[in-house]
Amino acid sequence: MTTTSQPSGDSVHTVVIGAGYAGLSTALSLADAGVEVLVLEGSERVGGRVHTGTLDGGVVVDHGGQWVGPTQHRLLSMAERFGCATFPTYDSGDHLELWADGICRPFRGAGPVGGPGVEQYIEATEAIDKLAAAINLDDPTATEQLAEWDGETVASYFDRTVPDEDARRRLALAVQGVWTVEPRDISLFHLLFYVASAGGFDQLMETQGCAQERRFTGGAQSVALAMAEHLGNRVRLNSAVRHIEHASDGVRIHTDEAVVHASHVVVATSPGAAVRLRFTPALPPSRNRWMERSPMGDVTKIHTVYETPFWRASGLSGQATVYGNHSVGVVFDNSPEDARAGVLVSFVYAERQQRWSARTAAERRADVLATLREIFGDEAANPVQYTEKSWPEDPWAHGGYAANPAPGVWVEHGAAGWRTPCGRVHWAGSETSSVWNGYIDGAIASGQRAAAEIIAGSAP
Amino acid sequence: MTTTSQPSGDSVHTVVIGAGYAGLSTALSLADAGVEVLVLEGSERVGGRVHTGTLDGGVVVDHGGQWVGPTQHRLLSMAERFGCATFPTYDSGDHLELWADGICRPFRGAGPVGGPGVEQYIEATEAIDKLAAAINLDDPTATEQLAEWDGETVASYFDRTVPDEDARRRLALAVQGVWTVEPRDISLFHLLFYVASAGGFDQLMETQGCAQERRFTGGAQSVALAMAEHLGNRVRLNSAVRHIEHASDGVRIHTDEAVVHASHVVVATSPGAAVRLRFTPALPPSRNRWMERSPMGDVTKIHTVYETPFWRASGLSGQATVYGNHSVGVVFDNSPEDARAGVLVSFVYAERQQRWSARTAAERRADVLATLREIFGDEAANPVQYTEKSWPEDPWAHGGYAANPAPGVWVEHGAAGWRTPCGRVHWAGSETSSVWNGYIDGAIASGQRAAAEIIAGSAP
Repeated sequence: MTTTSQPSGDSVHTVVIGAGYAGLSTALSLADAGVEVLVLEGSERVGGRVHTGTLDGGVVVDHGGQWVGPTQHRLLSMAERFGCATFPTYDSGDHLELWADGICRPFRGAGPVGGPGVEQYIEATEAIDKLAAAINLDDPTATEQLAEWDGETVASYFDRTVPDEDARRRLALAVQGVWTVEPRDISLFHLLFYVASAGGFDQLMETQGCAQERRFTGGAQSVALAMAEHLGNRVRLNSAVRHIEHASDGVRIHTDEAVVHASHVVVATSPGAAVRLRFTPALPPSRNRWMERSPMGDVTKIHTVYETPFWRASGLSGQATVYGNHSVGVVFDNSPEDARAGVLVSFVYAERQQRWSARTAAERRADVLATLREIFGDEAANPVQYTEKSWPEDPWAHGGYAANPAPGVWVEHGAAGWRTPCGRVHWAGSETSSVWNGYIDGAIASGQRAAAEIIAGSAP
Repeated sequence: MTTTSQPSGDSVHTVVIGAGYAGLSTALSLADAGVEVLVLEGSERVGGRVHTGTLDGGVVVDHGGQWVGPTQHRLLSMAERFGCATFPTYDSGDHLELWADGICRPFRGAGPVGGPGVEQYIEATEAIDKLAAAINLDDPTATEQLAEWDGETVASYFDRTVPDEDARRRLALAVQGVWTVEPRDISLFHLLFYVASAGGFDQLMETQGCAQERRFTGGAQSVALAMAEHLGNRVRLNSAVRHIEHASDGVRIHTDEAVVHASHVVVATSPGAAVRLRFTPALPPSRNRWMERSPMGDVTKIHTVYETPFWRASGLSGQATVYGNHSVGVVFDNSPEDARAGVLVSFVYAERQQRWSARTAAERRADVLATLREIFGDEAANPVQYTEKSWPEDPWAHGGYAANPAPGVWVEHGAAGWRTPCGRVHWAGSETSSVWNGYIDGAIASGQRAAAEIIAGSAP
């Protein structure tokens, strides 16, 4: 196989598969270093699991990843490089908790003081942080307690250590909200690794000073769009890769229309797409097992748009957590920076996402609006616009937010399977990051790491 | 889309994907009922995870599934229909247990009496049988304790209920031997379902009267070969399916060379292959999640061939269970019926399979032979032939014996995902069977059930 120094379209130094933040960051780092690169993206847009839409009246909403926090340096500096502005998440006034008894309990600040199960919940999150401090982030499988912690589900761990049922309800919603799976679906080890990669449990959960602190004025896809514009014809849309042939002297990447020869390939798709790629020869079993046993989470984001953010006038923040038997788990004020309209975003997660999404469109909408009415009153039940984005049904992501290794996967397949290159096949994607795993920031970190692998290891 | 009554090659009533026992049984039932059917098989042979080889000297060995037990009526009657003979598994003399102390403890009969952890092991298996009696086999998700049992790993369950470490070692090897995964990898619910589908824990574990009772004189693939011969040109080898388009009026099945139109399609591949198929439109999320979260197990079968079954003369059965820190977990006498040579089959499972298979061929062989020498003496270290079949590296099966739903998968995705047809797409494969799930008998049952769906539901 041959390579050239120009992206001629059928021969290039490095092919990157997927134009989400991981793939775009890989390409940007390679382009910055003068390495010729071609990004092949299956869909008709860049951004991957970050997808900004513009609704009637110019209301910008994020159907996918949307927030940025103060320790997410890679995303912040990428935004700075391309001049993409951010603004604070609306966080004033009372947050509400809705319980099965139908009572909405208000609270202010990072978390409730008092209320059902609060004490044990806080103790449990502190215990998680203590355990997470033992995680080796650069080589998670070198963590001393790996086998012990990867052998039990988070559900078993909570059952064992948290007696209060209401505290366990809080913890279950936290797991659903952060990992979009049920506590039974992931191992204690993966939860701890993920917490460690973010810098602590509060970083994942909270707004001020944490992962939900700010939003992008033009939507979170705006940075990706700017990166793609900078990369120019190095990004090719509507080019789904079907087959990857890899050998010691190069790779051949097959789309429906073309075969591209390259020296290296970086797989930067969602893990849900990566597991469906065909490789010749087959990948090592450890890598296959890692992908096969890291299924995507389940989440739908629902936006309801109103003339104004009417809840603000009542002293409400628009933030709500739902502990009853509802489909909606969490609500945020997602209004545009200029508040030209009021927007609530509702999240439906994990097992409830599967049940809710199997219902008719009218049933789904009525279900969400009934919950919003219960929390914010009658006005919430009459939005002027309503949108849903179901990530499990996205044909490129196959789920969201992220892929979560099942119990046993880190201990059995992590060492060789997590992100070790397979010959000339390299791995990017937020799931391969030691920092902010599962977040946009982690995706960027992963792309920069994959590009560094190629730059360091490339034949002259 | 149109269908014809003849398998013209590009239009047929039903396409079956995969010519393992499930696919062949589907096709046979349809052909018996006068329905035109075409089986598309990716590899160059039929049998799927059952694969018989003939070594030097005409020694027949089974690299995949091999045994048949007295309650496996479907496989037995299929063998009878096609005149395939069976013979008893060699089961005379002392079985051996090898522990980390290097001592081989002999025992006779179904299981040891006395010895490390035996009492609690037996209690635990009796407890499993009691719990398994509550499983609803026709609709597993209707089982009352579904959520409870699917929320914890088998490892957690044993940690919680079996204090004796040696008893837990015995249980771990039993799980590895039957499910080819670690106890941490599967939920208690799936283990109980599987036990129930076989008719009890002993049915899975034992030889006389149980799943390992008999072998096929011509190898376990002989029945599949006879079925395929009967089906004639309805079976097309070397025809890997890449893409399935399905609509309310028919399906289009794409291989690299052809497009076949049909009224229905039955996916009868290994789940590891099914998850990699491309569907347009995408399958419902519940089905995708079921497949994505049911990874294949890991097993390698190693055959060592000797001039004679020398262990028999020493009063040994050739059966051994290894509880030390060895790669080999279980050994059986796998000599041909006429004992023209002595054959031992060694199984390497689960986590140890991954580690062992990553080593060089010379290291793997030396490791296995060292264990066989420890058990059977010096003669065992000098086989005249040596073969390995690593199922995780099989490009069509992607693992073996079977796929195992991860914790949470039955409760979250079982009802809609397990085997419910998706429009004109039907599901076969041993993993979809209510009886002998994971076994050849279950594969045949699944094919007969899928064929019945099509016969019952077909438009005239």
